[in-house]
Amino acid sequence: MAIGLHTDFALLPPGGLPHPLSKRAITALGGLRRRDCTGSDMLGWLCLPDQPESLLDEIEAEARRISALCDLVVVVGVGGSSLGAQAALDFVASPYYNQLTKTRPQVLFSGDHIDGDTLCDLLTLSAERRLGICLVSKSGTTVEPSLTFRALEHHLFTRYGPDAARRILCICGDGPLSDYTRHKGYTRFAIPEDVGGRYSTLSPAGLVPMALCGLDIRGALKGAKAARQAYLDPEGALTLPARYAALRQLLADQGRPVEVMAMFSPALGAFGNWLQQLFAESEGKNGGGILPLPAAYTADLHALGQFVQQGNPIVFETMLTLSRARYDCRVAPGGGFDGLNALVGQPLDDLCRLAVEAVARAHSEAGVPVLHISAPGRDAEVFGWLVMFFQMSCAVGALMAGINPFDQPGVEDYKAHMRRLFGGLI
Amino acid sequence: MAIGLHTDFALLPPGGLPHPLSKRAITALGGLRRRDCTGSDMLGWLCLPDQPESLLDEIEAEARRISALCDLVVVVGVGGSSLGAQAALDFVASPYYNQLTKTRPQVLFSGDHIDGDTLCDLLTLSAERRLGICLVSKSGTTVEPSLTFRALEHHLFTRYGPDAARRILCICGDGPLSDYTRHKGYTRFAIPEDVGGRYSTLSPAGLVPMALCGLDIRGALKGAKAARQAYLDPEGALTLPARYAALRQLLADQGRPVEVMAMFSPALGAFGNWLQQLFAESEGKNGGGILPLPAAYTADLHALGQFVQQGNPIVFETMLTLSRARYDCRVAPGGGFDGLNALVGQPLDDLCRLAVEAVARAHSEAGVPVLHISAPGRDAEVFGWLVMFFQMSCAVGALMAGINPFDQPGVEDYKAHMRRLFGGLI
Repeated sequence: MAIGLHTDFALLPPGGLPHPLSKRAITALGGLRRRDCTGSDMLGWLCLPDQPESLLDEIEAEARRISALCDLVVVVGVGGSSLGAQAALDFVASPYYNQLTKTRPQVLFSGDHIDGDTLCDLLTLSAERRLGICLVSKSGTTVEPSLTFRALEHHLFTRYGPDAARRILCICGDGPLSDYTRHKGYTRFAIPEDVGGRYSTLSPAGLVPMALCGLDIRGALKGAKAARQAYLDPEGALTLPARYAALRQLLADQGRPVEVMAMFSPALGAFGNWLQQLFAESEGKNGGGILPLPAAYTADLHALGQFVQQGNPIVFETMLTLSRARYDCRVAPGGGFDGLNALVGQPLDDLCRLAVEAVARAHSEAGVPVLHISAPGRDAEVFGWLVMFFQMSCAVGALMAGINPFDQPGVEDYKAHMRRLFGGLI
Repeated sequence: MAIGLHTDFALLPPGGLPHPLSKRAITALGGLRRRDCTGSDMLGWLCLPDQPESLLDEIEAEARRISALCDLVVVVGVGGSSLGAQAALDFVASPYYNQLTKTRPQVLFSGDHIDGDTLCDLLTLSAERRLGICLVSKSGTTVEPSLTFRALEHHLFTRYGPDAARRILCICGDGPLSDYTRHKGYTRFAIPEDVGGRYSTLSPAGLVPMALCGLDIRGALKGAKAARQAYLDPEGALTLPARYAALRQLLADQGRPVEVMAMFSPALGAFGNWLQQLFAESEGKNGGGILPLPAAYTADLHALGQFVQQGNPIVFETMLTLSRARYDCRVAPGGGFDGLNALVGQPLDDLCRLAVEAVARAHSEAGVPVLHISAPGRDAEVFGWLVMFFQMSCAVGALMAGINPFDQPGVEDYKAHMRRLFGGLI
């Protein structure tokens, strides 16, 4: 298995990537390989493919236990503690997982807002279901998930008494939440201390929700391991994630600070949100960074498309596509008002491929640089591979820009203001 | 009722908005009022609040009939034919509408992609439900909704025989689809010819799906009418939508071509997507326009927030908030691991207000200009008001830039390539 990175569209200057950019990318990748780059104390994500079998067994056993007990699990988390699992669910299962599932609980993601009305609606619908909670919070002190967790936990204990404890899973780092779970007798899985939130998808933060939905967590780790081997091991080579990082930097240097990340399937929509968080929070520092704008194609061609084609030329485009369909779905017969009768019986997969080509042609003819990353298909192994690919590429890009890819000092500013303002309430 | 537009945060140069900008905005607004601006043949959206009672009665009657017949309706549409209704459903009802509804059918939006796997999953789940279809397509020839409609229509007729016709609603302009509906005996509602897709939310394109969900369509039109009166009637005044347009232009002129549209409730998430389409497709022409980037706050403060705070200074921020909560939701008691015990019993609404202030302070201290639009609450009337406000502001902004707000010539480029490539299949 491998993913492809194409730059078909007159993107590169004659002679290919400029030598200094390639060299910086290779140097940054070397820093990851030797574990001596900036932020090297937070490289635990590179080891996640090696998590012990015993841990995976335990995760799967807990997931089976909760599945038998609950028909709805609310996964409570925000940012990196939520987006990876959402991406996995849509990618590996389906955007319609909740409508289709028979043997596993439905899953709703919440805990990422401060909105009482939305929380009340969640409590109302939860009251009608055999409910479970899966709290994902590295620090255990983030305001948004805490507010939702409190409400749901209170609801569960009011309803089930002490038995409620069996319905609660916590995934967290060391600290007060970890102590609390021990005290209450909740099942707890650890997020390793050297893994940051947005690099934690392949830790229990993502694996536990994935297992709840019956997804193949071993496959995901296998894919990530293969990607690490393919991209990190070859010393001194400009492997794909480094090449992608260098291309992005080249385009930003050419005056295009915004990357439209075009996902060519609804199953990739949540993956786009995960990518946005990964890149924005890793790179957006010191007045720099490329602004990631996820888009759902072809839907957003009827929205953003006009801007990309003819608007302010500040964007370049990276398309993510899947080259293998899961089902054989063909154009259905119909009345022909739409002018598509000649296509009846054609695989939608083929039409999608042509749409990708049409977009690439139209946009590159308008001078918009188009990158194209294609992944084989939608299984857990490909998902793990892509997660590792993008995490490595993101880290390389930040390191090339002289930035620590693993901190987020700017997020602290609003949190500090909020704590101060909350203090005034008391 | 009124909405507020605040620019508290050291945004304006001394003396307020520069006179030439104000003047251009007032001139553009005058063009809308007199119906003599560029694109004046597409100003039908200004008349939508005056749609006759008889039409609304008919829409509501059809919605009741379909509700009795179906427990799932798939709304098939893309771009302007879909995003407005999605926004209305989350805003006026709830992001959890499908989980909460008892008396009205669940609603899924589709027809906005070319992805066979997603379509197959939709067919699988549809087969288990009493299904209805609501096709929304002004032209009737757009590829994405046509592919989905064909599949669902074929499924319905295979399953129900001729009786399937009763389960299909079509909302479209004049043309082949309109003829087809007559031929098949489907209920049809018209999108007026002088209303473009992205300005059609208050036409039957949005009203029919809203009515299916039991939303107050008369309230929405009432709010829109009040907004039109407040903002369009005063001759020569810089009313709020014109002021917002001028402020956006000022910020773009200051080197900030990206607008982060920060929605402070999950109920506003789909509204953000509607805004993105409205502005990107109206303004992104002739190498200009402000790139609209919708964000779900506070969730995205754990994602984009880092970039806004410390990244490439190409963005300004517009926050959309609600000043009145629907329910009295308060911080629940809990174990206190999160450090929030002192807040137990506080209304979440108050915490949200403080979070808004914290974000505004943190970002404006970092030099990011912050606009703040506050709407009273979440009912149909406010929704209609906001739709009219933003449509007017968007039109004024495009007219100020010398652009036709109502066409989308750039979208044609990829469509032309796609038609040519599809032709090669036959």
